Amino acid sequence: MAIIANQNSILSLKDVRIQDPFWSDYIRLVREVVVPYQWDALNDRIPGAEPSRAIRNLQIAAGEEEGEFYGMVFQDSDVAKWLEAVGYLLECEQDPELERVADTLIDLIAKAQRDDGYLNTYFMLKEPGNEWTNLSECHELYTAGHLIEGAVAYYQATGKRTILEVACRFADYIDTVFGPEPNKLQGYDGHQEIELALVKLYHATGNERYLRLSRFFLDERGKEPHFYDEEYERRGRTNHWGSDFMIKKRTYSQAHAPIREQESAEGHAVRLVYMCSAMADVAVETEDAGLLEACRKLWNNIVTRRMYITGGIGSMAQEESFTLDYDLPNDTAYAETCASIGLIFFAHRMLKAEPDSKYADVMERALYNTVLGGMSKDGRHFFYVNPLEVWPDACGKNHVYDHVKTVRQGWFGCACCPPNVARLLASLGQYIYTVKERTIYTHLYVGGEADIQIGSQKLHLKQQSELPWEGRVMFEIHPETDMDCTLALRIPDWSETAILLVNDERYSPEMANGYAFIRRTWKPGDRVELVLPMNVLRMKGHPLLRDTVGKVALQRGPLVYCLEEADNGKNLHRLFLPANSQPQTSFEPDTLGGVQVIQIEAERLSTDEWGEELYRRNTDKIYGPALATFIPYYAWANRGEGEMTVWVKERP
Amino acid sequence: MAIIANQNSILSLKDVRIQDPFWSDYIRLVREVVVPYQWDALNDRIPGAEPSRAIRNLQIAAGEEEGEFYGMVFQDSDVAKWLEAVGYLLECEQDPELERVADTLIDLIAKAQRDDGYLNTYFMLKEPGNEWTNLSECHELYTAGHLIEGAVAYYQATGKRTILEVACRFADYIDTVFGPEPNKLQGYDGHQEIELALVKLYHATGNERYLRLSRFFLDERGKEPHFYDEEYERRGRTNHWGSDFMIKKRTYSQAHAPIREQESAEGHAVRLVYMCSAMADVAVETEDAGLLEACRKLWNNIVTRRMYITGGIGSMAQEESFTLDYDLPNDTAYAETCASIGLIFFAHRMLKAEPDSKYADVMERALYNTVLGGMSKDGRHFFYVNPLEVWPDACGKNHVYDHVKTVRQGWFGCACCPPNVARLLASLGQYIYTVKERTIYTHLYVGGEADIQIGSQKLHLKQQSELPWEGRVMFEIHPETDMDCTLALRIPDWSETAILLVNDERYSPEMANGYAFIRRTWKPGDRVELVLPMNVLRMKGHPLLRDTVGKVALQRGPLVYCLEEADNGKNLHRLFLPANSQPQTSFEPDTLGGVQVIQIEAERLSTDEWGEELYRRNTDKIYGPALATFIPYYAWANRGEGEMTVWVKERP
Repeated sequence: MAIIANQNSILSLKDVRIQDPFWSDYIRLVREVVVPYQWDALNDRIPGAEPSRAIRNLQIAAGEEEGEFYGMVFQDSDVAKWLEAVGYLLECEQDPELERVADTLIDLIAKAQRDDGYLNTYFMLKEPGNEWTNLSECHELYTAGHLIEGAVAYYQATGKRTILEVACRFADYIDTVFGPEPNKLQGYDGHQEIELALVKLYHATGNERYLRLSRFFLDERGKEPHFYDEEYERRGRTNHWGSDFMIKKRTYSQAHAPIREQESAEGHAVRLVYMCSAMADVAVETEDAGLLEACRKLWNNIVTRRMYITGGIGSMAQEESFTLDYDLPNDTAYAETCASIGLIFFAHRMLKAEPDSKYADVMERALYNTVLGGMSKDGRHFFYVNPLEVWPDACGKNHVYDHVKTVRQGWFGCACCPPNVARLLASLGQYIYTVKERTIYTHLYVGGEADIQIGSQKLHLKQQSELPWEGRVMFEIHPETDMDCTLALRIPDWSETAILLVNDERYSPEMANGYAFIRRTWKPGDRVELVLPMNVLRMKGHPLLRDTVGKVALQRGPLVYCLEEADNGKNLHRLFLPANSQPQTSFEPDTLGGVQVIQIEAERLSTDEWGEELYRRNTDKIYGPALATFIPYYAWANRGEGEMTVWVKERP
Repeated sequence: MAIIANQNSILSLKDVRIQDPFWSDYIRLVREVVVPYQWDALNDRIPGAEPSRAIRNLQIAAGEEEGEFYGMVFQDSDVAKWLEAVGYLLECEQDPELERVADTLIDLIAKAQRDDGYLNTYFMLKEPGNEWTNLSECHELYTAGHLIEGAVAYYQATGKRTILEVACRFADYIDTVFGPEPNKLQGYDGHQEIELALVKLYHATGNERYLRLSRFFLDERGKEPHFYDEEYERRGRTNHWGSDFMIKKRTYSQAHAPIREQESAEGHAVRLVYMCSAMADVAVETEDAGLLEACRKLWNNIVTRRMYITGGIGSMAQEESFTLDYDLPNDTAYAETCASIGLIFFAHRMLKAEPDSKYADVMERALYNTVLGGMSKDGRHFFYVNPLEVWPDACGKNHVYDHVKTVRQGWFGCACCPPNVARLLASLGQYIYTVKERTIYTHLYVGGEADIQIGSQKLHLKQQSELPWEGRVMFEIHPETDMDCTLALRIPDWSETAILLVNDERYSPEMANGYAFIRRTWKPGDRVELVLPMNVLRMKGHPLLRDTVGKVALQRGPLVYCLEEADNGKNLHRLFLPANSQPQTSFEPDTLGGVQVIQIEAERLSTDEWGEELYRRNTDKIYGPALATFIPYYAWANRGEGEMTVWVKERP
């Protein structure tokens, strides 16, 4: 069993400033559109939208307003996720007005907090006295976890301690309620989140109590006799959601076995990846090789059995859930945006534990395809569900597609994904590099500048990236003085070859775990150029994947492509790609805001001469020539409603 | 527009005695197993099964027992369907003990009937006073329709009038409640059935009042202002099933437009085909060419856009319903056994209206595949849902398959299909021939004897059929004396050629509408032999069918074939049929009770050398040789749980 090496560190957003022709626009959208819009939403100022009342709930709890709680049991978490995104934005760039608004909110949150540290407006206003009686269903620790994540982000951005202290008081109180001691509850939340949040609080404060509590929650999960049953009996067998499903179906919340014994990714996909993220965190912090091995087992199950080529996870709408190995239907997929974000969290933690490009490859795949596809170019429309094949005519008529939307929806169609996209994009700078001793790992090729401390010296790193359209990345290295250290550049799984130039001369790097290592004494102004040829890749699925057999998907660089009706007409199922047809790519500045388009000779199954019969015997089908046009998957559904497919049948 | 020719007549079961090596066994099962078992079920004598209480409800209504109504609003219909099957069995063959039991039941039904003729134990016992207030949801006329069908069948078998008079009294009463007159209800039932039943009552009694009432119900359907809304308002907006779905979703019960304006088969599949059966009946009886044209329109939509190759209809579980043109998913199919039985009813009526082999072809397809597949060889296990592709590992894990059973279930798993299969098989003799003037049409090749009246003369016809295993059918014709008449033999859509011998000499028949006409002066002992070569047909789906593109299904004679895991191992999706591979057939007496098996050289996608990756780039897949073994679809799932597929990918 591998042991855990000294951990990698993540750079703070203060030290990484993204300036990238592709990504800066998205981050600007988060700052200028998503976060202001969400603030209005939390304050019930969006005309025509269902009210959130999340701020009002806090005002009532703080004694500033009269009234009743409104919303879901986890309504508070919307406020916390907003605060977290604001923290990241402020860490990247000062914004006094935004900070002023956030400070006002923080004062309100602090005022709403109970003297003992408890803070959850649902239980305080609606079920006082019932705190901690229904963890399996009521997201009480989940909501606490988001508060902690928001607090840590805001504290790290501003240095202001008010909200951090609110979080610590709450966490300290939780630590008096839960724990191995006989007078405490041996329980855990139905929706994982507190576990990873407590590790962040540990990092922010250095207080090991929070790390211990996180580990406790992880290790309690799935033990017998079962906590869900015990609390169910104690509260007189009541349930919150109208059925005992969340209590009895243990796989749904990964509570069917102790986490170290779980062999496969089961249940609600978001919960699973949030849990795995915390497992990886705790494994690293406590040097728990067994726990890291459990992470690897679940990681491998996801990426070798249960992940769409787009980095989507969750094969069915019911229970928003994993199903079984090699079950990845393209049309009834769930592939929730939040689940791919959680997969990125998990990958990022694994990179901290053991830098290996296999984690970064999946992180990149999920980011450029499912997550990016989850948001429209205007920042106002979102997908919750990200299918790989859509037939709009059947949506609304065949109810197996009832969860599928054919165009991105306004905010309130899917309230959990937009803030998750916002906090991920606002913190994207954290995902680009990790530093381990004297090695700087570059996991993502996103342009910008970074200030990196190596030992006692500082190094300024400038990255220019042409991704995702061309595979050319340039680095300028500016150490304070000449400096010995290593630049480790990820060679992506999509690059068939890689050319490396150091100061314009070919460089043959040492390769390990998917990274090219450039060890040298760096001088100010040194330049590194990485050229990753971006050929169009014909991707095939594993032979046990029923839904890709006989089909091919095109990928170029990190981008998975798709066919859309807007370019190819209706009935995309009639298009076949000959195995030997050669793709042509061209950058089309006027298409979808500027994308590389792939065109390829194809064959279209003809309906001529078929007639009216539904079935015919011993008939050879007739194919006619066609030109298939592929666009990046992330950009689909931006030209009205139409058919889309990622996987296309191949003809030998 | 075609006008309606003089109608064909159907032979009674007294005149058609089936003696067939294939079918007699099934009919014997109905007599010896299904009907006795169902009688025990109706009397709550099946240990461990959920009680039916259907007989008890009648006993309470008759004042013989005390107690409360139990069951569904249409619980009475289970009794009526049993009586209908009994009627057919008695018409085929005397059975004094069965007749005695039925007479006792009939006395009970008569005693339960209200003085005004009304008879429905749900409303009489549970909602007295609410009769006719919720037609859209409560199956009140549907239940009446089944009582009438049962009554007519029993009367025709025995000549006993008690139950016929019960039915007439009820129908007469209904006629005082519904009708165009201002003092009557202008309404109709949410579940069609009364319409076709009233035509049968008209045939049994000659009373045109029933035909008029049937036509009234048909013509009221879908008119605006809408009857469902009117009665909904009148009863104070209550609903029976917990939502207003059945009231508001008009397509569900084909009440979205007047029936003559309906362009496509929408909604609940069983309701649609029951409605169409009545439409065809009324069109014939009233010589309504417009109504017949409406039948043709719906027929064409079903068979050219919305029917599985197995004769299954209904593409989704939700609402047990049609979806849209060319949407025929193999794995999430509904294809209810009852719906294919209803399709046979519809086809049979269309044959009466206009003999055309296209109707009989579909009738045969539904009968030999979906209906036969719906019942196990032991007569005790049934499929309600008949998918064309099953992956048992995914059932229970991916909830899109929650409606799919991988093995046939005991009776109570699907209470509506077993009695429907019973009444169809018990009356199969009605479906073989129709007679129009001096032409005897043979629609199905089922062995047995028939006595046929042509003008003033009688003709005895003996059929010997080797179907479905070999395409050889022999007729012996025994007219009382030499007789001029025409034998019209259907040339099935699956036969590429047909050879006809009359008294051992080749005969070149006139062909029309898919029938071979043999006109001659028949002498006692004349023989006709029809040879239909049964080559294995490689069937293809229409290019607009997404779920069959690139695939082939094998058919031999009327039987559609499938691959099963028992013969071919797991992961059937890995099997490909080369376009040029030649099938071999052999009759295997020890397989599945004796079936023709098809074997064919295939290629199996290899998992060797693939490794663990879920997706790979620019990889050619490797195929290995395999021998694929196909069995008739109707016989699937008789060797334990396993994968099955009808459609198999083809390699050019």
